[in-house]
Amino acid sequence: DAHKLLVLAGDGIGPEVMREVARIVHWMSAHRGLKLEITEELVGAASLAVHGVPIRDEVIELARQSDAVLFGSVGDPAWSHVSFDKRPEVAILKLRKELELFANLRPAKLFDALIDASALKPEVVRGLDLMIVRETVGGIYFGEPRGIETLPDGSRRGINTEVYTTSEIERVARVAFDLARKRDNRVCSVEKCNVMESGLLWKEVVTDVHKREYPDVQLSHMLADNCAMQLVRDPNQFDVIVTGNLFGDILSDLASMLTGSLGMLPSATLGPVRADGKRNALYEPIHGSAPDIAGKGIANPLAQILSFAMLLRYSLNRSEDADLIETAVSNVLASGLRTADIMSSGMARVGTEMMGQAVLRE
Amino acid sequence: DAHKLLVLAGDGIGPEVMREVARIVHWMSAHRGLKLEITEELVGAASLAVHGVPIRDEVIELARQSDAVLFGSVGDPAWSHVSFDKRPEVAILKLRKELELFANLRPAKLFDALIDASALKPEVVRGLDLMIVRETVGGIYFGEPRGIETLPDGSRRGINTEVYTTSEIERVARVAFDLARKRDNRVCSVEKCNVMESGLLWKEVVTDVHKREYPDVQLSHMLADNCAMQLVRDPNQFDVIVTGNLFGDILSDLASMLTGSLGMLPSATLGPVRADGKRNALYEPIHGSAPDIAGKGIANPLAQILSFAMLLRYSLNRSEDADLIETAVSNVLASGLRTADIMSSGMARVGTEMMGQAVLRE
Ligand SMILES: CC(C)[C@H](C(=O)O)[C@@H](O)C(=O)O
Ligand SMILES: CC(C)[C@H](C(=O)O)[C@@H](O)C(=O)O
Repeated sequence: DAHKLLVLAGDGIGPEVMREVARIVHWMSAHRGLKLEITEELVGAASLAVHGVPIRDEVIELARQSDAVLFGSVGDPAWSHVSFDKRPEVAILKLRKELELFANLRPAKLFDALIDASALKPEVVRGLDLMIVRETVGGIYFGEPRGIETLPDGSRRGINTEVYTTSEIERVARVAFDLARKRDNRVCSVEKCNVMESGLLWKEVVTDVHKREYPDVQLSHMLADNCAMQLVRDPNQFDVIVTGNLFGDILSDLASMLTGSLGMLPSATLGPVRADGKRNALYEPIHGSAPDIAGKGIANPLAQILSFAMLLRYSLNRSEDADLIETAVSNVLASGLRTADIMSSGMARVGTEMMGQAVLRE
Repeated sequence: DAHKLLVLAGDGIGPEVMREVARIVHWMSAHRGLKLEITEELVGAASLAVHGVPIRDEVIELARQSDAVLFGSVGDPAWSHVSFDKRPEVAILKLRKELELFANLRPAKLFDALIDASALKPEVVRGLDLMIVRETVGGIYFGEPRGIETLPDGSRRGINTEVYTTSEIERVARVAFDLARKRDNRVCSVEKCNVMESGLLWKEVVTDVHKREYPDVQLSHMLADNCAMQLVRDPNQFDVIVTGNLFGDILSDLASMLTGSLGMLPSATLGPVRADGKRNALYEPIHGSAPDIAGKGIANPLAQILSFAMLLRYSLNRSEDADLIETAVSNVLASGLRTADIMSSGMARVGTEMMGQAVLRE
């Protein structure tokens, strides 16, 4: 019977790029026997405008009962001056927290055809294929106490708390070690243990998990500031990087920009394995809602399309369909089509829709 | 009469590169009428080994009473497993905190002669000249509560607290705006206001200071994850970046690596203006103690030498002497001498001492 899929296109370019996925879904239903029961809902600024909240509780419940969530992006400058609870971003933060989606897998992979789009020299970036595993339900994103308080003299104080517990660190470390075993068998754990006790605990727990359960994997440790430098100096030194929520946010955006093709990169965020052997999972492009180019029909739909391919592979167990999509994307790039973000000389510039159609044709 | 200078060479390559500064000091005393009353003290692992603490209170007192502090670098893998208070890094953290050195100025400037050393394409990095102003006595580096606690079930929890107050943000914002006025008149303030209330306060206070005191300067805001990406994509879009302690740590290391010449970059950390019109200040290279190459005589002494030039200019009011050093460094690079870290083909490879001597000759 049908897989339950929740589609949350969100804000900015989200709905535009999601439309191109919809075409592929229709084609796969007609020609590949894909059976999906799709529900679409509003999130982010789109939901705020209609419902007054960035995500409704019913939508969270729907997400929990789905086989997978395909997410677009949230964020809108028009909502940046409202109260803190009404940020569009709360939608994705709540989904991660409520569904316990603790491991965000962010590949930074260079598409050979796009090597010219990178700001890095070809000899530095060639062959780049690293994976950042970012913890996404703990750390300073969620720690209490938090807030802005007004002091007696009228001045104010902003507070956030970084908290990590042994079990939170253990479970994300396991995801990283498991992934490494299927890749180049190397994990680099990143924190700031010379300044933060939460980083010191992070380092100790990762070391313990490694010793007890994954002695066959090669483990190294790096400070977050050094990691940012090393990602620029020689990104090919890394295989899997595992790190906390805040460092992961910064370092994964940095790593994906190295490839020069942010608009190409999908990500998956996984929850714990449930009693039925499945795990909740959400798939989303690494790029954001890009309000500056929204509505112009020029956004790159490939990250969203590849996020759907990841979803087929990991949550629906349909690797052949995923292969089909990934090969189609490769072929389209090889044929020279480019959206504005990955444009380089000698290539043919196309918009969102033409790119989507080209993938479909392949 | 003589200026009081405290020299803290520290660990790793610190003492090696400081030796080359000493030569220049001797020469300037003999030929340029420079009068310095120099005190040298141990800090970091070097102090731990002798005194059992990363920095003695007397040394902090000496620093307070000096006209300037010339700092090398601290950090040593041998001391990475000791208790948290006995990290070599505590030396620099205490100096910053006790002397209230709140504004760390970190230039990321490309030396034209070294454009090949960058991992970025020449067309992306050419002309790079940005300045990061990093807050250094607040934020998550110092906030309370902090520590690792053991829970009833034996598991542990690591905690750190990010705190920023109105006045802490105001004073570092002013340093950034003042600097911008002498440069390209643009400030980009960086935080993570979509996730952290401390970042929201940061953004609001910077906006207020701008409106009240610096309406002539161009101000923009950027999220920290986006800033990491933009620094790789197009670093020339920035003039002055102002940010908190933790983001500043990561982003300034990233920015300096873009130039490909980490071993070339000095930094200054300034305290508030005192009653006597002067301000406490510490000068240090951006690079760390580099234990992997310590003792081999191959470290690049130029960042330490240029830190001394900054010290002459800003704390001792001797711009001519500073110019002399900076020109000498340019000439030496133009003549083709390179230490290993900035080596490229066709250049002459030299060690620490030969590089120092070459600057002296110029
Ligand atoms: C939208 C925002 C809250 C989010 C984050 O900071 O986690 C985004 O930057 C991301 O990385 O997914
Ligand atoms: C040595 C360490 C504590 C320090 C920091 O994190 O501030 C260093 O990385 C720096 O940037 O000066």
